[in-house]
Amino acid sequence: MIAVFVTGGTFDKEYNELTGELFFQETHLHEMLALGRSRLPVRVATLMMVDSLDMTSDQRMSIAKACREAPEDRLVLTHGTDTMVETAALLAAQVTGKTIVLTGAMVPWKFGSSDGLFNLGSALAFVQTLPSGVYLSMNGRCFPWDDVRKNKVKGEFEPVSTASGSGRI
Amino acid sequence: MIAVFVTGGTFDKEYNELTGELFFQETHLHEMLALGRSRLPVRVATLMMVDSLDMTSDQRMSIAKACREAPEDRLVLTHGTDTMVETAALLAAQVTGKTIVLTGAMVPWKFGSSDGLFNLGSALAFVQTLPSGVYLSMNGRCFPWDDVRKNKVKGEFEPVSTASGSGRI
Amino acid sequence: MIAVFVTGGTFDKEYNELTGELFFQETHLHEMLALGRSRLPVRVATLMMVDSLDMTSDQRMSIAKACREAPEDRLVLTHGTDTMVETAALLAAQVTGKTIVLTGAMVPWKFGSSDGLFNLGSALAFVQTLPSGVYLSMNGRCFPWDDVRKNKVKGEFEPVSTASGSGRI
Amino acid sequence: MIAVFVTGGTFDKEYNELTGELFFQETHLHEMLALGRSRLPVRVATLMMVDSLDMTSDQRMSIAKACREAPEDRLVLTHGTDTMVETAALLAAQVTGKTIVLTGAMVPWKFGSSDGLFNLGSALAFVQTLPSGVYLSMNGRCFPWDDVRKNKVKGEFEPVSTASGSGRI
Repeated sequence: MIAVFVTGGTFDKEYNELTGELFFQETHLHEMLALGRSRLPVRVATLMMVDSLDMTSDQRMSIAKACREAPEDRLVLTHGTDTMVETAALLAAQVTGKTIVLTGAMVPWKFGSSDGLFNLGSALAFVQTLPSGVYLSMNGRCFPWDDVRKNKVKGEFEPVSTASGSGRI
Repeated sequence: MIAVFVTGGTFDKEYNELTGELFFQETHLHEMLALGRSRLPVRVATLMMVDSLDMTSDQRMSIAKACREAPEDRLVLTHGTDTMVETAALLAAQVTGKTIVLTGAMVPWKFGSSDGLFNLGSALAFVQTLPSGVYLSMNGRCFPWDDVRKNKVKGEFEPVSTASGSGRI
Repeated sequence: MIAVFVTGGTFDKEYNELTGELFFQETHLHEMLALGRSRLPVRVATLMMVDSLDMTSDQRMSIAKACREAPEDRLVLTHGTDTMVETAALLAAQVTGKTIVLTGAMVPWKFGSSDGLFNLGSALAFVQTLPSGVYLSMNGRCFPWDDVRKNKVKGEFEPVSTASGSGRI
Repeated sequence: MIAVFVTGGTFDKEYNELTGELFFQETHLHEMLALGRSRLPVRVATLMMVDSLDMTSDQRMSIAKACREAPEDRLVLTHGTDTMVETAALLAAQVTGKTIVLTGAMVPWKFGSSDGLFNLGSALAFVQTLPSGVYLSMNGRCFPWDDVRKNKVKGEFEPVSTASGSGRI
């Protein structure tokens, strides 16, 4: 059994047609799994629905607690991209013996051109095959938590180290 | 570097608005990788564009040859679902020392509700992490080539063996 | 009140992921009206669900009967494009004193790239403003029933007459 | 010949995946007309790209000027919904002898669930059939400029007058 923990992020943002603003409602994880015809045994739980720029230390601690206490050894976490690396570092310090893969999206799932479904497919595959540890899965790649950063100019993730082969598990 | 070999299948079918029939034109792999914001080093090559029910032995042999001769050790193959298992078995017999992941879609990518992007994300992740061998990646799961079949009633893939835990790498 | 009569056609075709064939299930008119945020008082009724190439004389007669007996004076008919002109001619002979607009789609609504929503918007507007008579609304244009044909090479509708200004009400 | 003047509004908003904000780039009118398989003789011109809440008096005057000076007698104007009624009133005062239909969208076209294509189909139909005057076309309905308001709670347009039959041309 795999647990998928939802924390919000661009992934789940929607367009409020009354105000013209983006906001959170329910997670779209269930419909995404249905669209992908996923037959994985998965437990989906919404921990919070926040923009990762607004995520507090307390919220981050509660995510770590949920990961620790989950009966599953394999966990996917949907998360805003802006502070995904920060949460990954905390999880690496606080959770041991589990495979945790954080993923997200650059464009909301509800908008036609989202990378969300691709990223979800990747994350669920990586979480099944990688040894215990904390990873980020974005752009088809998988990064260990301590060798990744978001390149905010390009809007993509990249390894911090420059050694060839980095960013590829 | 990963090679993605296109052979056709539901994945790449389009709707011909003059005849009302489904047909093949160009592959959509490039736009799917773009939508997924993939930054993987990937070489895409179209080997053929056929419905897998129409695939001949010669065509299957030419796929095996292309896999053997490819400089890449990690290969993803898009393929119609109906005879995907058959091609996988041939590849297992004819190609050694490489990780080959076959994937496809139940609904064409060009139709709104396709599982193609999810499957592509999964396949590209599995191919990076699994040891050499031939696998099928569908429904978020990954199956070794010799323990999988398409359940044509349910429209999904399942392990042949009934042992618990099957169908999960 | 406007009546929308559904008869099938490309408009409502779906992809059967088990057989790879196109088929009819329920009409999508309701979700299309919802997506368009339509606030028109509309009654939707499914008369039949057929490919217009398969429509029989009896079925065509039953459509005419439904139009005659409807309490509404303004009717939109969704119809396959291949024999839309034929049905329009029958309606012109059998129904008087009502504004009837036939419309359809070149690509099924469920496929991403359908013209269906555009055509539905046009047809509902034309039916509100045109005097009684039978019309075809396709390609943003509106044609009187006796000056229109489907150009099967181009996949679009055009006036039969060549006088300038034709095909524009 | 019909002129379509673009002024911005929700219609043309896009999602900036680097900042997470909505912004304007190019208009999507051309791709929308292509998707609708429109064969209407149409001239598309972008007058400005603004949120209608930010539209200045000067900008509104320049729209009126463009409408007056256009060689076409039939004009569709895409416009943000928040001040669409205000612009319509100015056009009614400043432009005579032309049929002008303002339309917009509650959800950006680039997001999967937009009403934009439906509204564009309606507006292009109304502009072909209505006598000279200024109208708003939203929600499948058409309103004369002096009997319409945006209901900001419901997110839809409605007649100001309460007489039965209002809001229907």
